[in-house]
Amino acid sequence: MSETCKAVVYVRLKDGVLDPQGVTIQKALLQMGYDEFAQVRSGRFFELEVNGSVENIDQRLDEVCSRLLANPVIENYRIEKV
Amino acid sequence: MSETCKAVVYVRLKDGVLDPQGVTIQKALLQMGYDEFAQVRSGRFFELEVNGSVENIDQRLDEVCSRLLANPVIENYRIEKV
Repeated sequence: MSETCKAVVYVRLKDGVLDPQGVTIQKALLQMGYDEFAQVRSGRFFELEVNGSVENIDQRLDEVCSRLLANPVIENYRIEKV
Repeated sequence: MSETCKAVVYVRLKDGVLDPQGVTIQKALLQMGYDEFAQVRSGRFFELEVNGSVENIDQRLDEVCSRLLANPVIENYRIEKV
């Protein structure tokens, strides 16, 4: 019997990098009458189901993030194991 | 002086709704040799900076989510105040 665990990877643009999606959402909110939102930043997350039997899973998760899930030049990522 | 608070909205597809992006990522991981990932589900999040002086902000956040940030037919959302 193999257990599985879950990891969630949060990817967001680094501070200072322009986020056009966030800007657009903030403008749309303004037009809809929601003027209390000063700034909106967008990001993505990925829920990964991992086979628990793997060794050095932390390192492999880190590799996966920097190679596929995030662009380390302009994005930060954070790994959370559930 | 007005304080600001921050809210983060997490939007994900409901369980059972097909997630083509997640499927594609999982296949890409397999091809790259990462075969320990059984499933990948994707989602997005939004960091909102809110002027703290607003009344019934919880209700307004909920409105914003269902009207603009998420599609309640196929997506769930979760609001987290920081």
